[in-house]
Amino acid sequence: MKKNGILVVISGFSGAGKGTLVRKLMEKYDNYSLSVSMTTRDKRDGEEDGVHYFFVDHRKFEQTIIQDGLLEYASYCGNYYGTPKEYVEKQIAEGKDVILEIEVQGALQIKKKFPNTVLLFVTPPSADELINRLKGRNTESEEEIYRRVGRAIEEAEWIPKYDFLVINDDLDECVDSLHNIITTAHNAPGRQQDLIDKIKKELEVISKGE
Amino acid sequence: MKKNGILVVISGFSGAGKGTLVRKLMEKYDNYSLSVSMTTRDKRDGEEDGVHYFFVDHRKFEQTIIQDGLLEYASYCGNYYGTPKEYVEKQIAEGKDVILEIEVQGALQIKKKFPNTVLLFVTPPSADELINRLKGRNTESEEEIYRRVGRAIEEAEWIPKYDFLVINDDLDECVDSLHNIITTAHNAPGRQQDLIDKIKKELEVISKGE
Repeated sequence: MKKNGILVVISGFSGAGKGTLVRKLMEKYDNYSLSVSMTTRDKRDGEEDGVHYFFVDHRKFEQTIIQDGLLEYASYCGNYYGTPKEYVEKQIAEGKDVILEIEVQGALQIKKKFPNTVLLFVTPPSADELINRLKGRNTESEEEIYRRVGRAIEEAEWIPKYDFLVINDDLDECVDSLHNIITTAHNAPGRQQDLIDKIKKELEVISKGE
Repeated sequence: MKKNGILVVISGFSGAGKGTLVRKLMEKYDNYSLSVSMTTRDKRDGEEDGVHYFFVDHRKFEQTIIQDGLLEYASYCGNYYGTPKEYVEKQIAEGKDVILEIEVQGALQIKKKFPNTVLLFVTPPSADELINRLKGRNTESEEEIYRRVGRAIEEAEWIPKYDFLVINDDLDECVDSLHNIITTAHNAPGRQQDLIDKIKKELEVISKGE
């Protein structure tokens, strides 16, 4: 029986190390595909179309919404961000587990529409460590860091809606932990409906002495 | 932060190999404790009190019910069967994952009272394989085997209520799969409430500039 892949959403506090985790996960294991988001915001230096984002204009984005071509979308600061549906569905049908790194609202939007999605939330081991990592980046002002702490407080309220909470303390351990979680998530009954149906049918046949 | 263990309930079709799986799991990994059930039925040859069951009389069993000393109990063919609460709670507090092998009704009774329980359902890869294993035991009559198939059909309806469905095809692989599932189940947010509370509190402190 050919097994479908799973859609896996990774969210987490700013500074939790999501980007690095996802990259390492993709490098180490070959059963994953990375979903690339679509956005109307401008391309920044070093960003590539189709790698970091699919960069489109507002007209194209709104057409895609109307054609029901997105799993979820949201708008921030006048720009759209969304997840193209076609790529995800194709990869899942081919048995790949598709990784999608998005924030809390989008994650819950997807879980509501596709309950078999696995929602993972990544956190540093402590709030102090979160602050250290944000400061270590040297890209954010003190004010921006405190704004992110405020946002983390809001996000923490949504953690119970996630399927798994993972501590990113040691990077390699965390990558393996994510991989184990995703692997075992395939064992949820909702993700094995074909197997359940097959065994039920077989039992019925035996029971009727056919 | 000291981590509590989890209560893990293993159910499955008759002939799925639950008993062997549980024994192997206990032999291979040292983080498990096995919960021993209490019963009023007579001790059979080769059975030991405190190992296979705690054998008690009806009066003692009913006293235990009244004292709320059981996680769940049921009565079959005039005998009581139940899970003593004290042992399970003590082992969980010591960080052990407690394994409990019980049937579907008891499993769902426990999940309702203790939502953080992990419910695992074990199945052979096919109904034919189930029949082969039951016949291979040479202990059951043809009639008894068909009665068990009928029961399996009923039990199959309850699989979606379980957290995980595990195929017991290769024994060693299945033992490792059970171990991975139980290990990653610790990552559910509901089983890490202490961590969530700690980080929320730390973030609040930072946010207030204390």
